[in-house]
Amino acid sequence: MSSRSASDYPIAVDAMGGDLGPAEVVAAAHLALKEVKGLNELILVGDEGQLGPLLKGCGLDTDSRVRICHAPEVIGMKEKPKESYKKKDSSMITALKLVADGEAGAVVSCGNTGSLMFSATLMLRKLPGVERPALATIIPSRDHHFLLIDAGAQPETSPKQLAHNAILGSAYYAAAIGKERPRVGLLTIGTEEGKGTKRITETHDFLKALGEAGIINYLGPIEGFDTFKNVADVVVCDGFTGNILLKTLESCYGSLKETLKDELMATPMRKLGTFLAQGAFKAMKKTFSPDNYSGAPLLGLNHLVLKTHGSSDRYFIRSAIRIGLETLRHDMDEQVQKDIEKGNGIMKAPAMASVSAEN
Amino acid sequence: MSSRSASDYPIAVDAMGGDLGPAEVVAAAHLALKEVKGLNELILVGDEGQLGPLLKGCGLDTDSRVRICHAPEVIGMKEKPKESYKKKDSSMITALKLVADGEAGAVVSCGNTGSLMFSATLMLRKLPGVERPALATIIPSRDHHFLLIDAGAQPETSPKQLAHNAILGSAYYAAAIGKERPRVGLLTIGTEEGKGTKRITETHDFLKALGEAGIINYLGPIEGFDTFKNVADVVVCDGFTGNILLKTLESCYGSLKETLKDELMATPMRKLGTFLAQGAFKAMKKTFSPDNYSGAPLLGLNHLVLKTHGSSDRYFIRSAIRIGLETLRHDMDEQVQKDIEKGNGIMKAPAMASVSAEN
Repeated sequence: MSSRSASDYPIAVDAMGGDLGPAEVVAAAHLALKEVKGLNELILVGDEGQLGPLLKGCGLDTDSRVRICHAPEVIGMKEKPKESYKKKDSSMITALKLVADGEAGAVVSCGNTGSLMFSATLMLRKLPGVERPALATIIPSRDHHFLLIDAGAQPETSPKQLAHNAILGSAYYAAAIGKERPRVGLLTIGTEEGKGTKRITETHDFLKALGEAGIINYLGPIEGFDTFKNVADVVVCDGFTGNILLKTLESCYGSLKETLKDELMATPMRKLGTFLAQGAFKAMKKTFSPDNYSGAPLLGLNHLVLKTHGSSDRYFIRSAIRIGLETLRHDMDEQVQKDIEKGNGIMKAPAMASVSAEN
Repeated sequence: MSSRSASDYPIAVDAMGGDLGPAEVVAAAHLALKEVKGLNELILVGDEGQLGPLLKGCGLDTDSRVRICHAPEVIGMKEKPKESYKKKDSSMITALKLVADGEAGAVVSCGNTGSLMFSATLMLRKLPGVERPALATIIPSRDHHFLLIDAGAQPETSPKQLAHNAILGSAYYAAAIGKERPRVGLLTIGTEEGKGTKRITETHDFLKALGEAGIINYLGPIEGFDTFKNVADVVVCDGFTGNILLKTLESCYGSLKETLKDELMATPMRKLGTFLAQGAFKAMKKTFSPDNYSGAPLLGLNHLVLKTHGSSDRYFIRSAIRIGLETLRHDMDEQVQKDIEKGNGIMKAPAMASVSAEN
């Protein structure tokens, strides 16, 4: 990708792996082509026999901005990463291959997360200096959005990997949200220096050094209490904590939403009240819905891979395509590589030796 | 405590350590004596000069069920655990001493968590066979309540300690909620056997063995998605994850609540709607409020210690007193000791040797 910029390349969409099937993905493509400014080309990867009629059904068969790349196989949600990687004719592996071969700029998939991470890492390779890719996800709050990184790629993340995540997360936040030098917080269980696990105190030393070198905008350790307040933009944690946190929040939202809905519909008077106050509920949905920022990027690879929830509907997939394009435009890879290289130099320096030696 | 049962002993309340001061604690005592059936005696521990007039103010000075134990010093929220332990005349240390000396059955404190854990562990000692105490907290959901253990006492919890937490949490859940043989889930990032960290797979082996021996009712690994569904009653995790989870949920609730309130009050029509639907909001508050189950016990010690939030109001403290009495009545220590002993035997058995050797 030397002469053309990354955003000139099409986005490849794995059309088969999601829970709602290819019809939802085609509907998402339709929406994206209508709504996302500057989206020039989409490649829908999947079974031609199914995708052809679906495209025709919504008039996309004659749209030059979209084409099908035939891939007859599908990777199921329960398949093991290693096994599924062998399915070279699957929609996911084919979509990744398009990017690896330089035919597409990014992949969007709502398929099996484990398979996507495993295959993407093998096929797209890590950025120079990065040890492991990390999954990042944007969580909306009242006055700001925060990026949680790692949301589950590496259950056991070393201090150095956590420091890489701070760099990767900062670059992605700037690209996706448009805020430069986002505030980075290290998620832990007490904000006094020296509190938390050994991994945390070591990571804190690394992040402080990266902050002093101007590579990241490091705030310091933060507690769970701070996450939804407008304190940190990039919340760094290991993939075990991050994954549990993200899924628990989702479970909590579901429980709150269902209970409120039932309570509001319980009597005619409450129903009337709900009707009159409906603007408030719509505003709530708009503020807290992950719709606009769906698509969790697997950061630290040579190309952009966006994972959306297995049960993603057309709006989620549309947003992932939009965020994909936005991120490609920002073309963050060059700066990230410089920052990682500089960061690795700092973390190897004699002053950091006591930390590095133990990782 | 041989002839008298544990619930015959008074409950000692640290009246000075909370953010809202002794007046709120006295108000809580007043409420508790009025509302909590079978509550025979409370000892308010703190500065006599402040507590005397407060008791008089609400007519409790002539109530034989309440007495003051003078303790002139206060441990501040920012004091270091080790330093604060030396304040023998502080309300917290004095309250713990009442229990250690057999004068009270339980302690309720909204003071400095670190100090309380440190001093309670030293003064009340661990139950035989238990390696480390754990902080447990009840989280309300739509159709059930779940107990999160450990909520922050041990940031790095070994598989054996996690197994102890499953036993301790099960006993406490039965005592506080009244449900025998609660379902125990191990919180992790994927429910297939072998997924997650090494610590998790080892803990799973222990819990499975404890389940097969009938010591706990073990469900298996659960994901964050399952927490708010009616799947597990006792959710076992390390103190690092648990603390971050609990505080993030609190931060999330605060953000949702404030936003909804502002949106509902934004226009006259929404205000009217809110008035008509107010029953729904009250019901939500009742379902999800931690009011009724406030007070996080520090489990695994020889006596009961309940920590309530630093900012606890009278209702929270009242509930902690009620839960304290309930738990004392259940007199769970004897059974817990048997279960821990049996569990330790199982975890030491040759079949478990490969696991035990590494801890």
